Amino acid sequence: MSELNQSGPFPTVSWIGDASSGFLRMIDQTRLPGECVEIDCLDTAAVWGAIKRLSVRGAPAIGVAAAYGAVVGARGRGTDDPATVRTSLKETSAYLQTSRPTAVNLFWALGRMEEAADAAGDVSGPELVDRLLAEAHAIAEEDRAMCRAIGRHGADLLATGDGVLTHCNAGGLATADYGTALAVIFTAHEQGKGVHVFADETRPLLQGARLTAWELQNRGVPVTLICDNMAAQVMKEGKIQKVVVGADRIAANGDAANKIGTYGVALLARAHGVPFYVAAPSSTFDLSLADGSGIPIEERDPLEITEGFGRRTAPEGVAVYNPAFDVTPAELITGIITERGVVQPVDAETVRALLGDSRATR
Amino acid sequence: MSELNQSGPFPTVSWIGDASSGFLRMIDQTRLPGECVEIDCLDTAAVWGAIKRLSVRGAPAIGVAAAYGAVVGARGRGTDDPATVRTSLKETSAYLQTSRPTAVNLFWALGRMEEAADAAGDVSGPELVDRLLAEAHAIAEEDRAMCRAIGRHGADLLATGDGVLTHCNAGGLATADYGTALAVIFTAHEQGKGVHVFADETRPLLQGARLTAWELQNRGVPVTLICDNMAAQVMKEGKIQKVVVGADRIAANGDAANKIGTYGVALLARAHGVPFYVAAPSSTFDLSLADGSGIPIEERDPLEITEGFGRRTAPEGVAVYNPAFDVTPAELITGIITERGVVQPVDAETVRALLGDSRATR
Repeated sequence: MSELNQSGPFPTVSWIGDASSGFLRMIDQTRLPGECVEIDCLDTAAVWGAIKRLSVRGAPAIGVAAAYGAVVGARGRGTDDPATVRTSLKETSAYLQTSRPTAVNLFWALGRMEEAADAAGDVSGPELVDRLLAEAHAIAEEDRAMCRAIGRHGADLLATGDGVLTHCNAGGLATADYGTALAVIFTAHEQGKGVHVFADETRPLLQGARLTAWELQNRGVPVTLICDNMAAQVMKEGKIQKVVVGADRIAANGDAANKIGTYGVALLARAHGVPFYVAAPSSTFDLSLADGSGIPIEERDPLEITEGFGRRTAPEGVAVYNPAFDVTPAELITGIITERGVVQPVDAETVRALLGDSRATR
Repeated sequence: MSELNQSGPFPTVSWIGDASSGFLRMIDQTRLPGECVEIDCLDTAAVWGAIKRLSVRGAPAIGVAAAYGAVVGARGRGTDDPATVRTSLKETSAYLQTSRPTAVNLFWALGRMEEAADAAGDVSGPELVDRLLAEAHAIAEEDRAMCRAIGRHGADLLATGDGVLTHCNAGGLATADYGTALAVIFTAHEQGKGVHVFADETRPLLQGARLTAWELQNRGVPVTLICDNMAAQVMKEGKIQKVVVGADRIAANGDAANKIGTYGVALLARAHGVPFYVAAPSSTFDLSLADGSGIPIEERDPLEITEGFGRRTAPEGVAVYNPAFDVTPAELITGIITERGVVQPVDAETVRALLGDSRATR
């Protein structure tokens, strides 16, 4: 395994060099944890392919990759004429949007890049490319600031020596930096709190084993890998003081959708008196949903379970149920850690208070 | 996949032919579910190898295999002279005991075979072999009767249309017949109750996916395979009316040790108001243990988790915790289904009442 052992931003997605000749560099997440290979994207096709084959994943990380990819693409036919740069940018944006049509952050980030080009006004071609890179850096920086703020708020909730259970991967590999649930752990680790993480492997796709364990190991955070069905036993043995997980979507009352298995972990935490925290940016709240009952549960391919890692592990023709997410009701959530602070207790009123008026104008 | 589609005893371990020229036939469980291959053991070395490499597993099934293996071995140097048969039997018994030294049923069954030889008295060689085969058949038959009785008592607890969750494999592949937890399901199915089973795949060794799903499919019982971390969601959706699992060891107060993950399932069942039953022969009770705290939790090879699917799925060098069992406290167990009846509620008094005086003399 390659080791990064770095303490700066996690190099999930980064820009190498200047605006005129630099390029997008990403960790190829499809090769983890066996190999840590970085992909350098020198043209738009390389960016498109990396997003398409999930070399980069996680909504924030995809947005940042697309923004940097737009800079690469905007230079595609030369930068002498600003009109040519604008045309190349539009074509790049339309092309990259086809790489993963369900990724909302992809469209959002490319839209911001086009707006930045419009806002630049009457500038030279090279100057326009500079402006585009500055906008992409801003998108990445906003993501970093969000991660760091979640980390700060969440680390205050962890005590020295805590054992922390996490599920799936809400780490730096899904963002431009520290991640969400893992930002809490990374920050507590840097504060010298001596936390020890237990990572659920997270069937069927094993993001916990492949990605979370790898990220923690690389940053020197003590981590022990377990199968999902061992969480109850580890709690019973007194090894877990806190649970921290991410979220994909949170309803107005605090009900939180996350990777399948999260709801079960929340029930086990309650049975053992262990506080259960969700860490997510405030953009994860979907106030159009009064509660979690409106969140659709995507069902995925049975082969993820029956042939998960290249070998058949179940009889041919067996029926399979493979829900990708579940919803943890607010009553099981001790607190929701956001970049704006911690929602605790979790209910419609405290959620509204955190989001305040700012969400009304978004 | 091979299909058996038979309704008689499950052919996990059986004897083909007569005493003088017959042989032991077993399903090679290491090839399931990809292939249903039967192994014919024509000499002692074949029996030893099959037990050693886990082609046969589960305490009752190992005992029956060893008993039939003793018949094969007793004929090894001819059957004309009864003294030769006795010597061959003793050598076979000593040899087979080395195949899996921790399997209590192995020693118990071989001991019974030697006792049968002693009890036979002054008979001819062929007559002695007949007596040995009769004893092996008796051991298998006792196991079958036990499975059927558990099935009858347990099926009474299931209602028409019930969804039943099970964990790991407590089926016919672990016994000479119907299994324990699966005996309950098979019997209810035969009674036309239209039960539907949800089988946890049961990481790390996937006995639920490989064995339980296969057994149920082969007997025509509707079964849906899920990952362990999906059990809570399936319960939340109202698909589970009962949980039925096996047990490896049960303390005097009813605390039950079983495959890792069982304790978590019991907690999830309680949270959803779903009755949780343990099905096991009365021989599973260990009255020398006042409660489950005295049951040691075996830790197994980390590679079962990190390379469980034939491919590395976690970073090299990561710490792993791999407990093989957990203990479900009696208070979470609605009832314990044995061949003598159902212990319900589960406590030291009801356990004592079920086992009665018979255990004092065992």
